[in-house]
Amino acid sequence: MASFPERVVIEEQGLRDGLQPEKVIIPTQRKIELINAVADAGIKRIQVTSFVHPKLVPQMADAEAVCKQLDYSRDVVYSGLVLNPKGIQRAADAGLKHVGASISASDTHSRKNANASLTEARQGFAEMVRLGKQNNLTIRGGLQCVFGCRFEGRIDKNVVFDLIKEQLDLGIDEVALADSTGMAHPNSISEIAGHVRELVGDLPLYLHLHDTEGKGLANVVAALGVGVSHYETAFGGMGGCPFIKGASGNISTEDLVFMLGQMGIHTGVDVHKLAQVSRSLEPVIGKKFAGKMHHMLEREDIKIVHGNV
Amino acid sequence: MASFPERVVIEEQGLRDGLQPEKVIIPTQRKIELINAVADAGIKRIQVTSFVHPKLVPQMADAEAVCKQLDYSRDVVYSGLVLNPKGIQRAADAGLKHVGASISASDTHSRKNANASLTEARQGFAEMVRLGKQNNLTIRGGLQCVFGCRFEGRIDKNVVFDLIKEQLDLGIDEVALADSTGMAHPNSISEIAGHVRELVGDLPLYLHLHDTEGKGLANVVAALGVGVSHYETAFGGMGGCPFIKGASGNISTEDLVFMLGQMGIHTGVDVHKLAQVSRSLEPVIGKKFAGKMHHMLEREDIKIVHGNV
Repeated sequence: MASFPERVVIEEQGLRDGLQPEKVIIPTQRKIELINAVADAGIKRIQVTSFVHPKLVPQMADAEAVCKQLDYSRDVVYSGLVLNPKGIQRAADAGLKHVGASISASDTHSRKNANASLTEARQGFAEMVRLGKQNNLTIRGGLQCVFGCRFEGRIDKNVVFDLIKEQLDLGIDEVALADSTGMAHPNSISEIAGHVRELVGDLPLYLHLHDTEGKGLANVVAALGVGVSHYETAFGGMGGCPFIKGASGNISTEDLVFMLGQMGIHTGVDVHKLAQVSRSLEPVIGKKFAGKMHHMLEREDIKIVHGNV
Repeated sequence: MASFPERVVIEEQGLRDGLQPEKVIIPTQRKIELINAVADAGIKRIQVTSFVHPKLVPQMADAEAVCKQLDYSRDVVYSGLVLNPKGIQRAADAGLKHVGASISASDTHSRKNANASLTEARQGFAEMVRLGKQNNLTIRGGLQCVFGCRFEGRIDKNVVFDLIKEQLDLGIDEVALADSTGMAHPNSISEIAGHVRELVGDLPLYLHLHDTEGKGLANVVAALGVGVSHYETAFGGMGGCPFIKGASGNISTEDLVFMLGQMGIHTGVDVHKLAQVSRSLEPVIGKKFAGKMHHMLEREDIKIVHGNV
């Protein structure tokens, strides 16, 4: 059996990646309630919004308003997603102390989505880091579409490694590898995340997985095996990039927390409280989310085994 | 990275485990077409029916009629599920050469489902093997609810090991461990399937997984890591025991074949042909099946990466 980490840190991205593809606009006040409920469930890192153009992602038009009402008395790191220098300035002005900043590892995806070649995106990233440091933000850098692109197919792993090294040289504080398309598989996770794990040294390496091809938790098993102990997930398995065709949800926070608990890996998350968040949101959004455990956990007629017993 | 098997054998159980919980009765002729389509997709082992009481599982009332029309000119091993001596005699009389015979590892589940204590079920199993050998059947023995029971919770692994040793002593030809409830997790798979893998020696060890708690393919990764190279799956991710509360589908054959292909593990299965089978059945059953790839594979607007590239 592979040797797995004893503890896993989860950043809840249901408020950002989870909500961004949904047409039903959640009022700001309800978002704040959801953020506080996520924190009440024991999650210490929450991505609360993204600073993108409101015409492109209407759900995030209230980014500043959300940030204004965050409860900073809690022991939680709030994060915002930023994709360009303008976004990072907005995040700083909104009072955030931490951002997730990333570019696509795929040139085609970068051109279509960010309207920038990969070279231009790299320059933009350097400017984001400069601006972030100037504003005393801690920065999670990283890459989208690391394990595959719906335009290009597989991405050359050496391109990924070079881009990560370049970001590390700029002085980012954390790194995230995103399988934005769900195309990763256990061997590519072992190989690519395993090598990036070595590159980042003592910095936290987050893995962001989508279950588009059904391999989400399978990829977690491979990632745990190469020592990846930080994951970005969404409650209920919500989410998906609105600008990637065929995209679907993140791995479900509850499904991950529940599996890790059975494997004896500590997350500090109260999975019942989190499942309650997902279930409360389903009628608002008007659909069942793709995760399994948020509904399994409400069954009282069958035995559900928690933890490593 | 763990060392994985180079080849995996799949037994398609969509016709049995897949169809058994469905209320829409599929006509015998359509079942035969489905069986032949599965064989056309390159699958060499197909569980075609179960010999249970038609009042309990109406979908399987045509077991003998299905067996009568099987195409034995194909290089395929057809199997029937049997749960008691009467079933094994029916299978032999119907002309099958191979059966899957199993009992539950959970005493409570055995009493409620098979109306037999575990001790009685063990005696019944010995009688099944005797009858099977008398009729020149090859027998896949094994256990249900190995990794957990919805009545009892976890099952003592030593009970599992003792039951498997007892079955091996009776001279079964193959072994199957079923996670009937979907309660297995990667560590319990490594520990229990890993040890049973040693117990069975050169005999094929099949693993039968359900995705009830979302861990289906995650458990495959753990199982591959301990050398399990035989899996029972259902196209589209159909299925679930009608007598286990909260049960849901098997791991999807297409999802497994697709993931294994990306990992460079050979199955010999044409995943597109199999996905066609699942898609053809959805409107008949009247719902979307839980698997991911049978629909992903029909998309022509995005790049799908097959195999180990």
